[in-house]
Amino acid sequence: MQLSLATWRDVEQYLVTSRGIIIPVGATEQHGPNGLIGTDHLDAEFIAKGVGDKIGAMVAPTLAYGMSQHHLGFAGSVTLRPSTMIAMVADIVRSLARHGFERFFFINGHAGNIGTMTAAFDEIYASLSLQPNGHPSPIRCRMLMWSDEKRASSIAEELYPGVNGAHATAAEVSLSQFYHPETVKPVEMSPEVAPPFAPFYDCVDFRTRYPDGRIGSAPSRSRPEHGERLFAAAVEDMVEAYQAFMA
Amino acid sequence: MQLSLATWRDVEQYLVTSRGIIIPVGATEQHGPNGLIGTDHLDAEFIAKGVGDKIGAMVAPTLAYGMSQHHLGFAGSVTLRPSTMIAMVADIVRSLARHGFERFFFINGHAGNIGTMTAAFDEIYASLSLQPNGHPSPIRCRMLMWSDEKRASSIAEELYPGVNGAHATAAEVSLSQFYHPETVKPVEMSPEVAPPFAPFYDCVDFRTRYPDGRIGSAPSRSRPEHGERLFAAAVEDMVEAYQAFMA
Amino acid sequence: MQLSLATWRDVEQYLVTSRGIIIPVGATEQHGPNGLIGTDHLDAEFIAKGVGDKIGAMVAPTLAYGMSQHHLGFAGSVTLRPSTMIAMVADIVRSLARHGFERFFFINGHAGNIGTMTAAFDEIYASLSLQPNGHPSPIRCRMLMWSDEKRASSIAEELYPGVNGAHATAAEVSLSQFYHPETVKPVEMSPEVAPPFAPFYDCVDFRTRYPDGRIGSAPSRSRPEHGERLFAAAVEDMVEAYQAFMA
Amino acid sequence: MQLSLATWRDVEQYLVTSRGIIIPVGATEQHGPNGLIGTDHLDAEFIAKGVGDKIGAMVAPTLAYGMSQHHLGFAGSVTLRPSTMIAMVADIVRSLARHGFERFFFINGHAGNIGTMTAAFDEIYASLSLQPNGHPSPIRCRMLMWSDEKRASSIAEELYPGVNGAHATAAEVSLSQFYHPETVKPVEMSPEVAPPFAPFYDCVDFRTRYPDGRIGSAPSRSRPEHGERLFAAAVEDMVEAYQAFMA
Amino acid sequence: MQLSLATWRDVEQYLVTSRGIIIPVGATEQHGPNGLIGTDHLDAEFIAKGVGDKIGAMVAPTLAYGMSQHHLGFAGSVTLRPSTMIAMVADIVRSLARHGFERFFFINGHAGNIGTMTAAFDEIYASLSLQPNGHPSPIRCRMLMWSDEKRASSIAEELYPGVNGAHATAAEVSLSQFYHPETVKPVEMSPEVAPPFAPFYDCVDFRTRYPDGRIGSAPSRSRPEHGERLFAAAVEDMVEAYQAFMA
Amino acid sequence: MQLSLATWRDVEQYLVTSRGIIIPVGATEQHGPNGLIGTDHLDAEFIAKGVGDKIGAMVAPTLAYGMSQHHLGFAGSVTLRPSTMIAMVADIVRSLARHGFERFFFINGHAGNIGTMTAAFDEIYASLSLQPNGHPSPIRCRMLMWSDEKRASSIAEELYPGVNGAHATAAEVSLSQFYHPETVKPVEMSPEVAPPFAPFYDCVDFRTRYPDGRIGSAPSRSRPEHGERLFAAAVEDMVEAYQAFMA
Repeated sequence: MQLSLATWRDVEQYLVTSRGIIIPVGATEQHGPNGLIGTDHLDAEFIAKGVGDKIGAMVAPTLAYGMSQHHLGFAGSVTLRPSTMIAMVADIVRSLARHGFERFFFINGHAGNIGTMTAAFDEIYASLSLQPNGHPSPIRCRMLMWSDEKRASSIAEELYPGVNGAHATAAEVSLSQFYHPETVKPVEMSPEVAPPFAPFYDCVDFRTRYPDGRIGSAPSRSRPEHGERLFAAAVEDMVEAYQAFMA
Repeated sequence: MQLSLATWRDVEQYLVTSRGIIIPVGATEQHGPNGLIGTDHLDAEFIAKGVGDKIGAMVAPTLAYGMSQHHLGFAGSVTLRPSTMIAMVADIVRSLARHGFERFFFINGHAGNIGTMTAAFDEIYASLSLQPNGHPSPIRCRMLMWSDEKRASSIAEELYPGVNGAHATAAEVSLSQFYHPETVKPVEMSPEVAPPFAPFYDCVDFRTRYPDGRIGSAPSRSRPEHGERLFAAAVEDMVEAYQAFMA
Repeated sequence: MQLSLATWRDVEQYLVTSRGIIIPVGATEQHGPNGLIGTDHLDAEFIAKGVGDKIGAMVAPTLAYGMSQHHLGFAGSVTLRPSTMIAMVADIVRSLARHGFERFFFINGHAGNIGTMTAAFDEIYASLSLQPNGHPSPIRCRMLMWSDEKRASSIAEELYPGVNGAHATAAEVSLSQFYHPETVKPVEMSPEVAPPFAPFYDCVDFRTRYPDGRIGSAPSRSRPEHGERLFAAAVEDMVEAYQAFMA
Repeated sequence: MQLSLATWRDVEQYLVTSRGIIIPVGATEQHGPNGLIGTDHLDAEFIAKGVGDKIGAMVAPTLAYGMSQHHLGFAGSVTLRPSTMIAMVADIVRSLARHGFERFFFINGHAGNIGTMTAAFDEIYASLSLQPNGHPSPIRCRMLMWSDEKRASSIAEELYPGVNGAHATAAEVSLSQFYHPETVKPVEMSPEVAPPFAPFYDCVDFRTRYPDGRIGSAPSRSRPEHGERLFAAAVEDMVEAYQAFMA
Repeated sequence: MQLSLATWRDVEQYLVTSRGIIIPVGATEQHGPNGLIGTDHLDAEFIAKGVGDKIGAMVAPTLAYGMSQHHLGFAGSVTLRPSTMIAMVADIVRSLARHGFERFFFINGHAGNIGTMTAAFDEIYASLSLQPNGHPSPIRCRMLMWSDEKRASSIAEELYPGVNGAHATAAEVSLSQFYHPETVKPVEMSPEVAPPFAPFYDCVDFRTRYPDGRIGSAPSRSRPEHGERLFAAAVEDMVEAYQAFMA
Repeated sequence: MQLSLATWRDVEQYLVTSRGIIIPVGATEQHGPNGLIGTDHLDAEFIAKGVGDKIGAMVAPTLAYGMSQHHLGFAGSVTLRPSTMIAMVADIVRSLARHGFERFFFINGHAGNIGTMTAAFDEIYASLSLQPNGHPSPIRCRMLMWSDEKRASSIAEELYPGVNGAHATAAEVSLSQFYHPETVKPVEMSPEVAPPFAPFYDCVDFRTRYPDGRIGSAPSRSRPEHGERLFAAAVEDMVEAYQAFMA
């Protein structure tokens, strides 16, 4: 069930049987020569809906903008400052908690969000933990990369052994090719495999290290049919994790 | 062209010929007994894509969450605090401005955003106006309700004379029925036309005044085919306004 | 009764019979060749005191600084950033609410404040609406332009048909000439009627469009005796609106 | 010259010969049984205008609300949080600095503002000092209590030896009686001299220590004619200090 | 007892008999040609531990960074903006208050912190005072300069008559020489006594006025054995003040 | 070289040959029945000084307070909210960058800081990346847990195979026993090995899961002589990482 497509009475009904909600979170940032700028939020949303469809979990609207400061050297990339993203996530969680939601499961499509999202959760918990009375709060947040759990990551390794990479990965591009096949375009990349991950700093630095935007990846190997396999695997991974979280 | 579906090179190409971008903004909030919680952002997005398709303008990912504090008395509604939304909009505009975007055209689906969005624009301009040097900045923001311009509003008046209403309007519900016909459900509403608009305050107050969430509207009259007409009209309205803004 | 001229015991006494308070809000910004920089806050204050005198309502000290970023291209103009003004208004309302005030009636002299003030009210309400328990709060805020209601606006239209304008209006300048006749100075303006309202952005942009600071107005026609009529009319408008708000 | 009563061209003219501006700052807070809630800002404003009249210095609109958290136990008191007041002062100074003002002379009527105003100045300076380039900035802020310099304080000591006090002082009440004689009312106070100053904390604590709001003072001895002498003395003190600041 | 060297069970035990805690606060900023950059926080910490050792009071970890914007013209100086320091102090006090601490005694080594620390306390109290219910809170904060009370200041006056100064004082340098004798280095200073205190503004201005960083002081006269006497005196001063605060 | 023990001229000298600085960061939080509340910041500081001593790197004062919201259920624990810690770290880095420092190497003693510190770095970079001009900035931040690199972690595994744990680890307690042997106390723990790591939320939740504060650890096995070995190993690890960072 998508929150966007429900009425408030549907939500009341849902809350009778479940206190959990899935929130896709991604980014709007360059993904190399053939990757879509929306890859991170589109992928997360697509998988979240897959999970929701499979087990009837509520899926909230996607957080399409994330922490992408390092990509601002490439046209079209957008960042939220961490302090902004923390405030945004806290408002959303607090709003939903008012209605009785208690378990907030974020399916994340962008590793660059991890620090900020962790800080956002701690900002929420800190406001609870600093309450003098110390009553227990039911609010619990969890975040997972859809691509990092066992099924999806082992398929990625099988498909692109050693070169799935760290940004504009072949796997995430394949997934977007699966649900948006019309966007597939053959792009020559040189070198085929981008330079490996190394620490980077601001966006000027990033672009110097990774001139076409990719890190360690070879997304010219991406294929829609890979995306289909990855989708099925990631949905299974996320269903398992969500159910464990709700238990 | 959707920013989400473009590569960074596509965006560079686009910027050669245009400095404008369309950003749909809405809300995630109750829309009465038969309106979708996502109505405001889905409608804005649908029309923005219509505009983008028609004239080749770039459309950014939708701001799906807005200022909806007054709806928090109904399950599923989410608000950003105005201060959060101001920070979020400022970050997005500043990010895009870095790449050379200059005209930010927000297609808004939620009247409750107007104060906060206006404040956000002024927050952005203030940071420019407070610069000691006073160099002119190219950043220009504009926001319009898709439903308020001449074509769409006159069709709404024709279809629901005197009772289109102020929230959960028959028009906005019809539009969502057009692109999501599977969500149409016949709902008995009593009274058929909700109590008229009057000032409201916090969310407890709002629910007391409007027990099923509607203001002054009769969305049991909504029809997908109305939505189709409204869509065509609103796209024309927005195309006209966007082109005037870019001139 | 002016809050500034009362003792705390007077205020306790007042609260026995009324929970309402009037707060004038304006700006400190250029008002064209013959308008005073304080026009917006002086006008709002003068009318608020008129209302207070007439019906015994409490009048708080004036918010003399407002959201005026677009005027910073003219010497003497001062702006609060929207985020600052939101915090300021919230602190004032919360302080007064602690004593038992419940209805906050802002008489506004500056249209440029509307977005930010609306956002400020929603920031206050949001902090209430996000409370888990959802108890009803008595806090209610209302804001009106003194110049926009029926009596004052129809006199302005009668006196300056079609050319009262949008900034440095003949009406607001007349009002300040009424209570500060010593500031009247004949100033040649060219053109007599300033260019009409059109959207503007930051302060450099504003000054380019409106080189002497006026928008669509002809304040060389302002007269103290016009101000006298406008004052009487605006006080009546505001008394009516305040009483409706308190009902 | 009052900024509120000037046009922007007057301000431009003023800046040709002076870069200084006087900003009265006070509070809206209880002042005991016979002191006005506006005492602190009205006194500061009255003296600032006296200084402006005497030497032709520009006087900005008064900051009528200050840091008064400790007085919130008494009806009518209003506080800005320190963080809010810091933002407000910074915005005002930065706005005026844009026009060429360089010396900001705050005449303060409320000792409770001192910490926060000092922090505000340092917030402004810090934003300059953290600039990488380290160019010298012309912004200089100074704040003085009108009542603490030699002439005014020695008259207060002469008039109320040992009992002028620390809040709701006989001197500040006398000053307000001078310019608002209609507000004088004989009030019996018991004890005649309020308990002496001792550290206090939040507003509940304050009221326990000082049940009628006064600290160490005997404002039943205040007289309008005392206010007249204090006014003359304080204006001379402030003129001297302002001229030294401008030198 | 040092909080850092205690276990949580030790703290529980401590709270059975006392609700007080000592928090040293200083700065990381230049202290002239022979003064240590850590002088302010090291001195405050050393004295706080002395107090703690003598009377068994709990001593929290030192706030080593303070409000030092004016020193940023000298290498190694670090500032927190006032708004940052306010947030930091508020978080620490609120955390400790949760456990039952009620009296927060800050031993301060840096006069430049006074405004900001005062604002921080008022920020904490304001959040309490703005609570609608007005329950009394046990939180009480106090701050004293270790060098300003009677014993330590009279020794400083005896040792460096008229030239102890206002920054990089002979006394504070002597104290650091006492506990870090290995850092003593003979430095020629010219003039021997630095220019006297006068108001300063941002860090470029400060360095112009005080080219080697000292204000009004002659720290070439500092000696470890002076530091020993100052230490004993300051500990006694602080013990007395702490005990009065706890009474 | 410790920044606290240097003069500003020493720092100027240092900057001639190096642009790097080491900043220890930890927390003030419970560490189980025998671990010190200061463990995280004392350990980080001790190792940082070890590194500084060995290779002549500058070591800044320790950030003794960190993100510890989950520990607030145990007496003596203190948290900074993530938003506060982000502001604090940004101010410190920006201050030091003004003097010419370019490489900021944080030696971290508390895994709970990782999200917030990452967000802090991105907040700093974002302010650079959002600059319109896009000049490269020399600011580079790096953070490592002293306990996670190869030498120290393999010794911990050797000493406490499978039971070093995730909080109040045997290794971190051993290290503090090495430099503070006087704090060693034999404490019976039951169970000897604490419950294993599982996700936790606010501080009430944490205490329920981990009643004596430990996660997965057996710090009754800690020994000062273990600490000595860990110290040597961690210093070597950090020296290697720092030198790679500076290269």
